[in-house]
Amino acid sequence: MDPRFDTPPSRQGSDSIKWGRYAGRDVLPFWVADMDFAVAQPIQQALEQRVQHGVFGYAAVPDSLKQACVDWLARRWGWLVPPSHLVAVPAVMPGVNFAVRALESPGALATPAPLYGPLTQVADNLTLPLHRFAVAAEQGWDLDQLERALQQGARTVLLSVPQNPIGQRFTVEQINALGALLERYDARLICDEIHGDLILDGQPHRPLALTPALAQRTLTLISAGKSFNLAGLPFAFAIVADPKWRQGLKRVLQGHAPASNVLAMAATEAAWREGEPWLEALLTYLRGNRALMSEQLDGIEGVQLHRTDATYLAWLDCRALGFDHPARHFERFGVGLSDGSEFGAPGHVRINFGCARATLAEGLKRLKAGIAAA
Amino acid sequence: MDPRFDTPPSRQGSDSIKWGRYAGRDVLPFWVADMDFAVAQPIQQALEQRVQHGVFGYAAVPDSLKQACVDWLARRWGWLVPPSHLVAVPAVMPGVNFAVRALESPGALATPAPLYGPLTQVADNLTLPLHRFAVAAEQGWDLDQLERALQQGARTVLLSVPQNPIGQRFTVEQINALGALLERYDARLICDEIHGDLILDGQPHRPLALTPALAQRTLTLISAGKSFNLAGLPFAFAIVADPKWRQGLKRVLQGHAPASNVLAMAATEAAWREGEPWLEALLTYLRGNRALMSEQLDGIEGVQLHRTDATYLAWLDCRALGFDHPARHFERFGVGLSDGSEFGAPGHVRINFGCARATLAEGLKRLKAGIAAA
Ligand SMILES: Cc1ncc(COP(=O)(O)O)c(C=O)c1O
Ligand SMILES: Cc1ncc(COP(=O)(O)O)c(C=O)c1O
Repeated sequence: MDPRFDTPPSRQGSDSIKWGRYAGRDVLPFWVADMDFAVAQPIQQALEQRVQHGVFGYAAVPDSLKQACVDWLARRWGWLVPPSHLVAVPAVMPGVNFAVRALESPGALATPAPLYGPLTQVADNLTLPLHRFAVAAEQGWDLDQLERALQQGARTVLLSVPQNPIGQRFTVEQINALGALLERYDARLICDEIHGDLILDGQPHRPLALTPALAQRTLTLISAGKSFNLAGLPFAFAIVADPKWRQGLKRVLQGHAPASNVLAMAATEAAWREGEPWLEALLTYLRGNRALMSEQLDGIEGVQLHRTDATYLAWLDCRALGFDHPARHFERFGVGLSDGSEFGAPGHVRINFGCARATLAEGLKRLKAGIAAA
Repeated sequence: MDPRFDTPPSRQGSDSIKWGRYAGRDVLPFWVADMDFAVAQPIQQALEQRVQHGVFGYAAVPDSLKQACVDWLARRWGWLVPPSHLVAVPAVMPGVNFAVRALESPGALATPAPLYGPLTQVADNLTLPLHRFAVAAEQGWDLDQLERALQQGARTVLLSVPQNPIGQRFTVEQINALGALLERYDARLICDEIHGDLILDGQPHRPLALTPALAQRTLTLISAGKSFNLAGLPFAFAIVADPKWRQGLKRVLQGHAPASNVLAMAATEAAWREGEPWLEALLTYLRGNRALMSEQLDGIEGVQLHRTDATYLAWLDCRALGFDHPARHFERFGVGLSDGSEFGAPGHVRINFGCARATLAEGLKRLKAGIAAA
């Protein structure tokens, strides 16, 4: 129990797309990846204070924001990043797209399946060939499949670590094997670690760029967007050790990124400087939500809940129910989920459990009714 | 006299790049195009209220924001725009760059000189050939030069209307002649009308897309960024009548724009809905600042002040003083100006008079000392 998370502000009638989709209908939303929680008190205060000043002209990315990021990564991820490696980008996804544009010869792209759709969409955006390789909870990435992709011309691999949608981390062995493979083919890695602060179990997040074989060939994207629920106040950093890639990124961003948003920067800096206690409380709460899901869904015939060890996203295998689009079925029972087809894995649904426990409980009740009626 | 403008909050030690450039030095800044004023009260309230809600997740561009824009354009510019013609872009300059990318065959670009640097920079960003043609206060665009550019392959013309840096509007005759020329060569126009609300004299702003010959071949960019001083809370609309160009713009934006910033949208909507009285007061104040500049600079040997009829930017011809970079000279006298070379017109300086009158008075005193010492 934690009032900060048990009784969040109502988002009904707000600008939220998560809640707006089902306005006027009795469907509870568990789809798009934001949480229903108010931001941490220090973020709220930083916003109030910056708004109070009243003048919102052109601002640079302050050194103090870069330093807050560097300190956060050192403290939480054990990663020592020189501030000069940071490049401010408007948000994580623009960062990914521009990072590929910044490469002289990106070759074909390779992405795991299932994966957060917009990462795979990059190939379409830039009209580049695309290879897919499997990823699964225990086995991790299917490196045999990835190797075939590399043999066929893939040179830039895009990953989500921890993995959206399966809610999984990767072991040091899996990461080392990936590093060796990418080194062998001299391929690049764009590693989206936006969920890196949302570790529910075990050791802290280990950024892939810490692996020596990957350090120089990796561009990492991070933000406070997921962990501190700032999706609507976007700001992100690309971390790039390779000076040529870094310069290239700055060059392709020229004229294409908006001027810095002073309130998004104030919120992000407060998150990294003062948000740690709130984040720990959040993780405790999310663990409780995860436990509720297991309690309600484990052992139910027709579905299989993957164990989420990171993110607030759970992955439910409903293939045995026989629906092409199970999310459509469940919507009729009053639960709004993301359909696996969005991630390249039909027959699954993704459940966003970043919400009040009571809301989740009601959603699970409805979900179970939908399963029973299948 | 107006306390809202006479005694603005101090920006020293804030995130302002305008003031940050001269931190710790006795140089008053009159360069980058933002104003020193706090935002209008309704904007301040909208920000406070949205911050109060506390949840900042993913948000769509609300229909109410589009409607506020459409109403503003109808009321202030006499322009009836169907909401479906609006495309949200992260800010004006990204809008311009992506608008060119959205064209199948942009051909060479053509821009007037002098011009706000980033508009000319688009050619570099997208590695397209560039032609320049002259623009001047009385004569307007040099259409003979533009015609030669069109003959040499220019197909996309980029304009700032009213014109930054010369602070000028254009006559209906000049606009009609431009329209006839672009029609003859079947060329496109990207018209940056960010300064369109800052009209100091005479008739309201007349958007170029209102000219029949231009309506279908023009993409217009507008925002509340300049008029309501929201550069640090960026948001803008592209207005595109041609459905193919519009679709193309949405396509090239895919994956490259950050999620909507909820606070920038709240500020912009408040500006267009409730900001009109503040804007009128601002324009009165800016006229007073302009009068002070004329009073102080007219008739001084060695410089010639252009009459600003729109924007808060004045253009000073100092070629007679013989400096390659006059802004460097004046900096030594404690005034920070934009050098004409940034706009393609060496020997000039641009003075941003969007500041408290007392600050401007002190700046003019220093400027005159610099002129006297030249
Ligand atoms: C893996 C991943 N990357 C990126 C994003 C989006 O990040 P941003 O809004 O900063 O572009 C999401 C949002 O769901 C995500 O899950
Ligand atoms: C003509 C013109 N266009 C665009 C901009 C910048 O607009 P934005 O910050 O929305 O990209 C400026 C700023 O000075 C400008 O003068």
